[in-house]
Amino acid sequence: MIPDDRLLDLAARLADASGAVIRRYFRAGVDADDKPDRSPVTVADREAESAMRALLAAEAPGHGIVGEEHGRENEGAELTWVLDPIDGTKAFLAGKPIFATLIGLLHRGRPVLGVIDQPVISERWVGAAGRPTTLNGAPVRVRACPGLDRARVSTTGPQYFDDEGRRAFDRVAARAKLLSYGGDGYQYGLVACGSLDLVIEAGLKLHDFAALGPVIEGAGGVVTDWQGRALGAGSGGDVLAAGDARAHAEAMRALAGAS
Amino acid sequence: MIPDDRLLDLAARLADASGAVIRRYFRAGVDADDKPDRSPVTVADREAESAMRALLAAEAPGHGIVGEEHGRENEGAELTWVLDPIDGTKAFLAGKPIFATLIGLLHRGRPVLGVIDQPVISERWVGAAGRPTTLNGAPVRVRACPGLDRARVSTTGPQYFDDEGRRAFDRVAARAKLLSYGGDGYQYGLVACGSLDLVIEAGLKLHDFAALGPVIEGAGGVVTDWQGRALGAGSGGDVLAAGDARAHAEAMRALAGAS
Repeated sequence: MIPDDRLLDLAARLADASGAVIRRYFRAGVDADDKPDRSPVTVADREAESAMRALLAAEAPGHGIVGEEHGRENEGAELTWVLDPIDGTKAFLAGKPIFATLIGLLHRGRPVLGVIDQPVISERWVGAAGRPTTLNGAPVRVRACPGLDRARVSTTGPQYFDDEGRRAFDRVAARAKLLSYGGDGYQYGLVACGSLDLVIEAGLKLHDFAALGPVIEGAGGVVTDWQGRALGAGSGGDVLAAGDARAHAEAMRALAGAS
Repeated sequence: MIPDDRLLDLAARLADASGAVIRRYFRAGVDADDKPDRSPVTVADREAESAMRALLAAEAPGHGIVGEEHGRENEGAELTWVLDPIDGTKAFLAGKPIFATLIGLLHRGRPVLGVIDQPVISERWVGAAGRPTTLNGAPVRVRACPGLDRARVSTTGPQYFDDEGRRAFDRVAARAKLLSYGGDGYQYGLVACGSLDLVIEAGLKLHDFAALGPVIEGAGGVVTDWQGRALGAGSGGDVLAAGDARAHAEAMRALAGAS
């Protein structure tokens, strides 16, 4: 399914609506509540998702919604929007403008459109099946990375891996050219525009990864789980994104423990 | 020694000169060489420092210079500029706009003026003895943080600690409200404007920390080594910055292993 201009326009307006809320609260003394999984959530997360839901209710009432903060609507719809208003709430609270609003569109469970939006510094990656990925409207491409020894690798933080996952990540990091921490969903935009070669994460949920495939694949990259399977509504939460399939294959072997 | 307007103006023009170079190279396909300590350096680091040195040669030929990339000049001068064109070269290479240009001015070895500048997204913190710290010209203040259990803690990455340092950091992190990775010198600006409560780092060099004291102290915070000693030309590389002296004291006890 190839998203038409109307769907791309709606995705852009969702990001606009979310960003307007987020900019109002960034570095403005917002405090966090803890969710049951101890991850933080703020009034900015909740109001930004509500703004996107209000727009969808008005413009696309038949579509499904899966949102990080306010749950599911219209389950079983052919088209479902997957919303994460602030992916990187800790970075948002810390005042670091490298969190992202993630907007994915699933067609029968398969991601066909993705937006990675940084509303404070106005950076927006848009990817959709059948089109080149853009950053602020201009096409972007991944960069070549023939092997791990040349790779710029990033992950949000070591605390998101379990012990086994941490050892697997460390096997990749030990062979990489450069290791950088921080960035949540924003990191995947950096793969799409050729700044990063690999992003490796664990424990992600659908709202964290639904937007990533269209953005990275439309820029010439590849994103799968750690076993090389496509990401979709039924995926687990381990994500391996790469600009170059050769670095992806080598990282997958290192994650699995092969030398 | 209270820096006068002429010195503050010169510091701002140094940051302007460095930033013009850095913006030209950001996300522009720059590659890194490895320095002897295996940290990366790029043409952007070298040219940005050269641009600052050329300005100092023209405007303040009698001042001393300590630069990360091009060494020392006029050792023994009463006033010495300490230059780090890109603090966070890995973040620069990864395309993350949270590295910083750090400019410190020492009077007889004691920091009296500091600039933390993010040239891509145009954020500049300026601190000087006898003046309130500003972010883009507007005064900023730290936020209150009565104890570690309320603290937003940040560090660049776990790989910069040795094993003992990592255990000490983990003791602080385990009691903190929120832990965020990434940011190098930019993190200290976030303490000064009340987004972060604590930044804890190890292995820093003079060019990494000379600018921090004036910025954080002028915003109402405190920055010392892990034993509570003032930072200056003779300091070791362990840095503990806090917006609130109570959180600073509790973090210092946790770093030392006290319960």
